[in-house]
Amino acid sequence: MKQPAHVVSALVENRAGTLSRISGLFARRGFNIDSLTVGETEDSAISRMTIAVSGDDAVLEQIVKQLEKLVDVISVRELEFSSCLRREIMLVKVKADQKNRPSVIQVAGIFRSRVVDVSASTITIEATGGMEKLDGLIMLLSPYGILELARTGMVALERGERVLSLEGNKKP
Amino acid sequence: MKQPAHVVSALVENRAGTLSRISGLFARRGFNIDSLTVGETEDSAISRMTIAVSGDDAVLEQIVKQLEKLVDVISVRELEFSSCLRREIMLVKVKADQKNRPSVIQVAGIFRSRVVDVSASTITIEATGGMEKLDGLIMLLSPYGILELARTGMVALERGERVLSLEGNKKP
Repeated sequence: MKQPAHVVSALVENRAGTLSRISGLFARRGFNIDSLTVGETEDSAISRMTIAVSGDDAVLEQIVKQLEKLVDVISVRELEFSSCLRREIMLVKVKADQKNRPSVIQVAGIFRSRVVDVSASTITIEATGGMEKLDGLIMLLSPYGILELARTGMVALERGERVLSLEGNKKP
Repeated sequence: MKQPAHVVSALVENRAGTLSRISGLFARRGFNIDSLTVGETEDSAISRMTIAVSGDDAVLEQIVKQLEKLVDVISVRELEFSSCLRREIMLVKVKADQKNRPSVIQVAGIFRSRVVDVSASTITIEATGGMEKLDGLIMLLSPYGILELARTGMVALERGERVLSLEGNKKP
């Protein structure tokens, strides 16, 4: 997975249609979303979206401005890539019989990932970290045969005391 | 976050507009998506979406059938809740000064979560697990003051050897 150029974080109203309106805005501009995660915050009426996108800086700036105008969006900001914490979780199911099971488990161990399920012919591993780490693990597991793989996409928060305000950053 | 009633897993084409079309389908039926994650698979042309939704069984069945008809959707299935592995990752930033820092770190330890950033007045924690575990951690951290919180939403794979086929499950 290529490193995305931009990470946009948004606090949004948790209601039907919000996701559709926001993703539609990116689609209309021809921006492909590399990853998008959405989950409730401590307030169940409000969700936080983390959107990783590649594309032109000027166009993204326009998109952020348009997001600000949506009624569903409480607050939105592009996070500075270098100063934010980024994490992702992945479940990956690999072919592994009795013979090569130990070596798959060893690879999992090197990446500090956990074996969460084993069957006669498969192992399922849970791994967390940044994008590069997960890509590295996928590369090492590929020779065994990846049966299926699910990544959440990136979630990000700024380091230190800065927060995305609930009061919103919209102009009156 | 309430336990979702349904988990839908879909392999989709990784291109602009796919997410918008899929989330639009749920929105038009008035289905609020509890969480949605989308990430590339081992093949960068194909993404996997995990959608957690609450709502009527019969309506969801119709939605799955309509998803099957979308050209972007290669394969889609509702996963059996009891027999699938479900994981989520969360970053949470909590108020913590020198005085209560140790007790926040202790709570993080109980939940086997990791401190990933510390400032003079904040601690940021990374936690992974099922929805209930993360909800439990949020509850225990709330008294300290949660400054911000980002959850990826749920990613899920079936246990054992069963996989969501790349050949697709569409009817000809």
